[in-house]
Amino acid sequence: MKRVKVSNNVIRRMPRYLRKLDELAENGVDKISSRQLGEQLGLTSSQVRQDFNCFGEFGQQGYGYNVATLRERIAAILGMDRGFTAILLGVGNIGRALMENFCFTDWGVSLTAAFDIKPALIGTEYRGVHIYGMDELDRYLSENKVDIAVLTVPKTVAVGVTGTLTARGIDAIWNFTNVELTEPGSRTLVENVHFSDSLLSLCYYVAERSDEAAARAARGEK
Amino acid sequence: MKRVKVSNNVIRRMPRYLRKLDELAENGVDKISSRQLGEQLGLTSSQVRQDFNCFGEFGQQGYGYNVATLRERIAAILGMDRGFTAILLGVGNIGRALMENFCFTDWGVSLTAAFDIKPALIGTEYRGVHIYGMDELDRYLSENKVDIAVLTVPKTVAVGVTGTLTARGIDAIWNFTNVELTEPGSRTLVENVHFSDSLLSLCYYVAERSDEAAARAARGEK
Repeated sequence: MKRVKVSNNVIRRMPRYLRKLDELAENGVDKISSRQLGEQLGLTSSQVRQDFNCFGEFGQQGYGYNVATLRERIAAILGMDRGFTAILLGVGNIGRALMENFCFTDWGVSLTAAFDIKPALIGTEYRGVHIYGMDELDRYLSENKVDIAVLTVPKTVAVGVTGTLTARGIDAIWNFTNVELTEPGSRTLVENVHFSDSLLSLCYYVAERSDEAAARAARGEK
Repeated sequence: MKRVKVSNNVIRRMPRYLRKLDELAENGVDKISSRQLGEQLGLTSSQVRQDFNCFGEFGQQGYGYNVATLRERIAAILGMDRGFTAILLGVGNIGRALMENFCFTDWGVSLTAAFDIKPALIGTEYRGVHIYGMDELDRYLSENKVDIAVLTVPKTVAVGVTGTLTARGIDAIWNFTNVELTEPGSRTLVENVHFSDSLLSLCYYVAERSDEAAARAARGEK
């Protein structure tokens, strides 16, 4: 695929478009205008068109987008058709929650192995995925193609495990540990999952609503 | 606090500023310019200044921001000083992972109770939080102030539980279920945690890098 530099904000909207298009398809919608799509996502129609324009021609003027075609294009942009493989490091609560509830294959990623240090887990399978000992990680990486490491280990070992990964050339990490893994300028791609960002955004809106209610009360409205 | 309407993008950057300021304070940094702050977050200095301007005067021209003061102001904007309370619904893997690893109090939120349907869990404590039966939820809500419901129940019961919550006036939901909980225009505040958005953004960058490497190879570079 030909690539132009696209802003991070645009890229982060792509998965949201994808989910919305899946929902539309599920509801039997087969075409949609940029205005309608924008409305459903809290975006303007021109923002929607600009976002897609980053990746070439998508719709037909005056007709709108074909839902299935647009979905396929976005899936390709996001690399969902590349056969990416992932391994999961740390089969604790969050690791198990992902293995149990998160359908990696729905997003084009195969979870091929998991790793832990607990003897009771090693050699077993969880949700169809084999759990290896953490001391087998280096050998596994030398023998298997791994695109993404899902990091769900305890904080204390996060940096050490990352060292093993990067030494073997694994440089895409989905990081659930809340530990800053790389220096600025590092070649490793780290996607941090910060639950706090999400909770605090919600808190903002709760606080805002409470302030608005207080202001209304002060004005004698109800 | 006086409120003006602030765009969602600005609000979503606030928690990121907060984390960065915590990191700076930890490293002994006590003042920072908008340019430096922007650089560390991949933003321009003017974007940083504009973001803060939404909430009044923050820095001093030519001096920069005092890290501790700015942190305190942002914490207040995010409602971290309001004493918000939360309950958690569904003590499965993801629920336990949050109770175990996510420090609600660090973000100004008290987790006061958890609910589940498993008899073996009901009446026990996990990480200092009492687990009630789901059939006690309605009574609990009638007797206690709850600002936020953390929804970590299985998909199949997500909508039903949400009904109980909203009937009792709980209208801020931190939703881990991947189920669309509300109709557009609903008064309920729902913050959805979509792991897939995060993974797909990472996949985008992995695909981009792979394409760039292929393009370099095609041009005979290494």
